[in-house]
Amino acid sequence: MRAVDLIRTKRDGGQLDRSALEWFVAGVTDGSLPDYQASALLMAIVLRGMTDEETAALTDAMVRSGVRVAYAGLPYTAVDKHSTGGVGDKTSIVLAPLAAACGAPVPMMSGRGLGHTGGTLDKLESIPGFRTALSLDDLRRSVGAIGCALIGQTSEVAPADRKLYALRDVTGTVESIPLITASIMSKKIAEGIGGLVLDVKCGDGAFMKTEADARRLAHSLVATGELAGVRTEALLTNMDAPLGRAVGNALEIVESIETLKGRGPADLESLSIEFAARMLVLSGGERDLARATDRVRAALSSGAGVEKLREIIENQGGDPRVIDDYSRLPAAPDRDRVAAIRDGVVVAMRAEMVGRAAVGLGAGRDRLDAAIDPAVGFTILAPVGTRVAKGDPIVEIHHRNGHGLADARTLLESAIQIGDAPAPARPLVLDRIQGRGSE
Amino acid sequence: MRAVDLIRTKRDGGQLDRSALEWFVAGVTDGSLPDYQASALLMAIVLRGMTDEETAALTDAMVRSGVRVAYAGLPYTAVDKHSTGGVGDKTSIVLAPLAAACGAPVPMMSGRGLGHTGGTLDKLESIPGFRTALSLDDLRRSVGAIGCALIGQTSEVAPADRKLYALRDVTGTVESIPLITASIMSKKIAEGIGGLVLDVKCGDGAFMKTEADARRLAHSLVATGELAGVRTEALLTNMDAPLGRAVGNALEIVESIETLKGRGPADLESLSIEFAARMLVLSGGERDLARATDRVRAALSSGAGVEKLREIIENQGGDPRVIDDYSRLPAAPDRDRVAAIRDGVVVAMRAEMVGRAAVGLGAGRDRLDAAIDPAVGFTILAPVGTRVAKGDPIVEIHHRNGHGLADARTLLESAIQIGDAPAPARPLVLDRIQGRGSE
Repeated sequence: MRAVDLIRTKRDGGQLDRSALEWFVAGVTDGSLPDYQASALLMAIVLRGMTDEETAALTDAMVRSGVRVAYAGLPYTAVDKHSTGGVGDKTSIVLAPLAAACGAPVPMMSGRGLGHTGGTLDKLESIPGFRTALSLDDLRRSVGAIGCALIGQTSEVAPADRKLYALRDVTGTVESIPLITASIMSKKIAEGIGGLVLDVKCGDGAFMKTEADARRLAHSLVATGELAGVRTEALLTNMDAPLGRAVGNALEIVESIETLKGRGPADLESLSIEFAARMLVLSGGERDLARATDRVRAALSSGAGVEKLREIIENQGGDPRVIDDYSRLPAAPDRDRVAAIRDGVVVAMRAEMVGRAAVGLGAGRDRLDAAIDPAVGFTILAPVGTRVAKGDPIVEIHHRNGHGLADARTLLESAIQIGDAPAPARPLVLDRIQGRGSE
Repeated sequence: MRAVDLIRTKRDGGQLDRSALEWFVAGVTDGSLPDYQASALLMAIVLRGMTDEETAALTDAMVRSGVRVAYAGLPYTAVDKHSTGGVGDKTSIVLAPLAAACGAPVPMMSGRGLGHTGGTLDKLESIPGFRTALSLDDLRRSVGAIGCALIGQTSEVAPADRKLYALRDVTGTVESIPLITASIMSKKIAEGIGGLVLDVKCGDGAFMKTEADARRLAHSLVATGELAGVRTEALLTNMDAPLGRAVGNALEIVESIETLKGRGPADLESLSIEFAARMLVLSGGERDLARATDRVRAALSSGAGVEKLREIIENQGGDPRVIDDYSRLPAAPDRDRVAAIRDGVVVAMRAEMVGRAAVGLGAGRDRLDAAIDPAVGFTILAPVGTRVAKGDPIVEIHHRNGHGLADARTLLESAIQIGDAPAPARPLVLDRIQGRGSE
């Protein structure tokens, strides 16, 4: 097989067959395919697209570039959830313990924050001692013992994805639904799961700004999961404004725990319950969504969910006392506030600007190797829909010695819009997309 | 400037400005731009295209990656001709001496054959002693002294083109009208010419198979030349069948000399005269095409053209006695023939197959570093339009000990079509395209 023939085929709008895609991925993984040929093919894929079958074959080849985890002796099928990334999105930290508390095995591999979006690993690591760099053996053992582990991607899982992503990042080939699909799905399929729920976010703070793009991505992800034999569902959710009230790593841990204690914001709670219930059904632990939802609600109100999170923290070396004592989490030394500039109703709080403001404070990173400050962030005191008088605080800023404060303030002031009356809001869940295997 | 921003701009269908293209070419030339970013941008250019202004800016940046030759004390503007490549196309060897004999300075840089098309340098080097690797100083001196030199591309001319072409060759990014345009025109503009005629071939044996593609390339080349201040004209010519009767390096030298002696085939003679006349007008040596054509015809019939070729050969170290004694050129030891399989008229002789047959004998090369045999090739005894009886010889094969003979025979037999009556032939010159500066 010659790289230039594959490149030409795709350049001219043709399809690449399974053996060609396997050869490409193998060459990327072992370094035998020069980067300049890989990047030319990636650009041709960006501009010419791929069929669902090509995307599934690419995904499969990427899965087989590394290890696919297998579990033995689990009561139900392992399941996971993946989000395309948002601002204030801590649902994983709420739903994983809830689903596990109901019996669904949840081997969850998450990522770090990049750009204006946060990352589950960064949030978890704000818990003193919490280790996310577990081995696959640790993952298998943890899921067997307590039903859940929340870890980072290991080097054995889809190594082709890391190499391809590094190349895509510097060659303008990130923005491609088939390539995004293969990147997400190869890592998830390699976890050894049999069911997956996807949170495909769209709107201001999401990677996909329009509902049409998000819908295309959701369909591609679901089709690819189903072709790989993983029962896959996607929810299209609104990311115009941050989810919940907390943005920033330790602040989001507090909000997650509060939600598991039944005191969370409605948007975060409802989304976490729906995802956990769907995971429970996909795992085989409950036979329909209504019953599963009841089970998950019960796990929340009984405290089984928060106790499962305590177990997870303890299992991964973290200090479980944070569950009861938030002062054990890092806290920023300084506070400031953004206030309403006039009487009215908060009609918008643009998530991307809020996310960028948080990065400026140190809560996130623009480069993957940058350090973050787990303590800083925002508490949203007056979320979208709240009536405010001029001077009322809208956002509380948790900062460290004013680092990034001025820019954050400017961004927040631009992000917040106050109108005369409540604006018609898009629903949180815009649509639900199921594969044929899930119908 | 960041490479990824340029790549994204072109990927999304935007335009790259002059400074961006200069930065790209400078990075390719000095190696500071990684190949994987260059190839991603090249693929985006292939699929998104470029405006005439972008193509001209890219060309200009490629010219300025090296030296642009300047001449002093020439009587007229330096002019050149370029062909996009064909089979049996030895017009350069006829027209350059004719134009120079009429006073037009002709600093011609040519290329080698690749694939099924031949190259002027290979043909010239079949003349014993003829050197094409002249320096730019030699070029200037030769043009000043005798009005013409026929040389290869030197390393000082458009070095960016060599690097880009090497990358395009292995990344499926050759087939792009803007990139082809910039590659051709940067080398021609760097020669220091003020006028250029282009032979854009189309048909079976040409790079551009369709007239529409050839026309687009011709317009792009002319627009780019004009934007660079070079008066540029293009002829769209038919390359369905080989030009003239000889295919193969030494055989084509003989045919070129015969043509300069007034005994050449009509297609080769008429095309050479038209190109030489247009060059003479562009150089300022004659004021209209009719007068220039008369001058060129006179140079042919007077023997001034063939004497100029003798001077050129002598000036470049070759044996000028070949003009009068063809036995001083390499000759293949063995002959064979392809005969008519039935009575009828030769209605087609597909040029690409003929060219591939010649490569198989050793007359050309599939890789740039392969050696060639200057002696082998074909003499077409019955060109398209000739009435033949079954068994009549159509092509004489000049081979060496049967090397490549069987395959060449098979290809020739496929290339030759015999019909019942003459087929309506396309004219040799399909169209003439002039820049505004030439009207």
